[in-house]
Amino acid sequence: MDFDRLHQFFKDHDNYILLTHKAPDGDTLGTAFALYAFLKELGKKARVVNSEPFPERYSFLYEGYQEEQFEAQTVVALDIATEQLLGSNLEEYKGKVDLCIDHHISNSYYAKESYVDGTASAAALVLYDFFKDQGIELSDMQAKCLYTAIATDTGCFKFENTTPEAHIAAAELMQRDISFSIINRKMFDTKSCERLAVEQAVISKMEYFFGGRCAVICLTKELMENSGVEPAEFDGLANIPMTVDSVQIGITIKQRHERVFKLSVRTTESYDACKFCSFFGGGGHIRAAGCEIEGTLEEVKKKVLAEVEGFLGRTSCAE
Amino acid sequence: MDFDRLHQFFKDHDNYILLTHKAPDGDTLGTAFALYAFLKELGKKARVVNSEPFPERYSFLYEGYQEEQFEAQTVVALDIATEQLLGSNLEEYKGKVDLCIDHHISNSYYAKESYVDGTASAAALVLYDFFKDQGIELSDMQAKCLYTAIATDTGCFKFENTTPEAHIAAAELMQRDISFSIINRKMFDTKSCERLAVEQAVISKMEYFFGGRCAVICLTKELMENSGVEPAEFDGLANIPMTVDSVQIGITIKQRHERVFKLSVRTTESYDACKFCSFFGGGGHIRAAGCEIEGTLEEVKKKVLAEVEGFLGRTSCAE
Repeated sequence: MDFDRLHQFFKDHDNYILLTHKAPDGDTLGTAFALYAFLKELGKKARVVNSEPFPERYSFLYEGYQEEQFEAQTVVALDIATEQLLGSNLEEYKGKVDLCIDHHISNSYYAKESYVDGTASAAALVLYDFFKDQGIELSDMQAKCLYTAIATDTGCFKFENTTPEAHIAAAELMQRDISFSIINRKMFDTKSCERLAVEQAVISKMEYFFGGRCAVICLTKELMENSGVEPAEFDGLANIPMTVDSVQIGITIKQRHERVFKLSVRTTESYDACKFCSFFGGGGHIRAAGCEIEGTLEEVKKKVLAEVEGFLGRTSCAE
Repeated sequence: MDFDRLHQFFKDHDNYILLTHKAPDGDTLGTAFALYAFLKELGKKARVVNSEPFPERYSFLYEGYQEEQFEAQTVVALDIATEQLLGSNLEEYKGKVDLCIDHHISNSYYAKESYVDGTASAAALVLYDFFKDQGIELSDMQAKCLYTAIATDTGCFKFENTTPEAHIAAAELMQRDISFSIINRKMFDTKSCERLAVEQAVISKMEYFFGGRCAVICLTKELMENSGVEPAEFDGLANIPMTVDSVQIGITIKQRHERVFKLSVRTTESYDACKFCSFFGGGGHIRAAGCEIEGTLEEVKKKVLAEVEGFLGRTSCAE
């Protein structure tokens, strides 16, 4: 599928449902709302949907958006690698996706037609390239959506997945009236004082092991329930142990039930987090993985540290 | 002064002293070492100097650098807005700076010749433009120095001072062998456990004023000296008050001597930090500025909060 054909697809269809993935981020939402505005310009009916209500955190991407009711005819998935990522309230669209625009190399090609660019830093860059290629003028709102999507998916141009193309797109998009520095402050540099207090509580009890190569933080049910912080806000905490420069494996132990704990494991380039979690029947990505372990907090910690000891000795590729 | 003349300057002179500013950051060091490599290519003698030993944190910018001894003939200041920023051990160069390359609009034009581009995100971008304009090929090491300088001075392309030109330069520089994501992890995402402990100590005593619109942290000499943290590592702490989403003016009070305190002021888009610091005879940028105030810590705080109260009422442009 090339961009001309993609353009023809948008002209030929109508009554669009634009799917965003569960636990939505800036890329899935930014891409969906930028496409939404394009479809409205084409005179089409369209609706952006998510398994849950859109997060307040991204409200500046859907300012003034009014949901219209119509009979769905065309289903488009944005930044969704597999149908499992639709979330429980969008299950009805499984097997019914007409078009998928994505940048995950792991995309399972579940849609009838797919435009997947695995080299793109964000799904939004695929859409940006399409707009550019087809000579489509962007509104400030679309520029804001695409910029936010690219910035959030690259950690503000910090991560390894940042491409020269991401920078060049940003250079163009930021020249529109988008207040990019305000967006960035909101996305990357600020948190509620409740969230800061939780971080403080967690860091003050962070434990270091094996000469500082492993750090462990714990989130008990009690701490989370008394914090006044939204459950979604706890996810980012799993990066805390890795902020210490000596740490090669960072472990976050989050209490799910009385005797059930969820482990979130992060590693540097030298270690495979997914492999570590597989010892406990879990899995994930090479630098970020997870698993569940039963027992008291002390028992869980003991089990985990016993594995870390062997793991650090066994699988380092840096030393 | 234009780039042709600048190039001629470098050819015509020799035995260079490249001055970097006190409490050196990625921009002053990156610009100096990128220029150093250029001068060595021209067959010149050159030495990069700072008031204190170079911080270990930036050691990847001066890998393999060997200081050579020679009689200084030409003094060049990089990213140094005023001679006050030279630091106590470089006072001998006051009144003797032949050339200054800078991007601060507040530059006092103390040098015999100056190339100041107040629109550039970083001093490194001025040098980058010069290299580009004159068709000078960069080594990987120079690309690493310039990328780091631009990334650090823009908060990794996050801050308002980020220009399209900064993104476009990054797009080119990152294509060299510079491992930009490892640089960024080191510059932005990791810290020593000692630094984390200092942050903890400081945050636990952070005070909020005026309904959470102002936050103040204090770094006493005692805290800094007992921390085991390099002085350079304290600079980033000035951003801490602004991480709380309600804060519009964030103030860091750092003790210099028994009764002398350095203020670092950060503001949101609604307020002018430079204007605030000018009340105390200081200056800087619109979102990040500084000044010195004498007195006990309590006296300093009182003076500052009295100004903040009027300032928040007086100069808001958002409300």
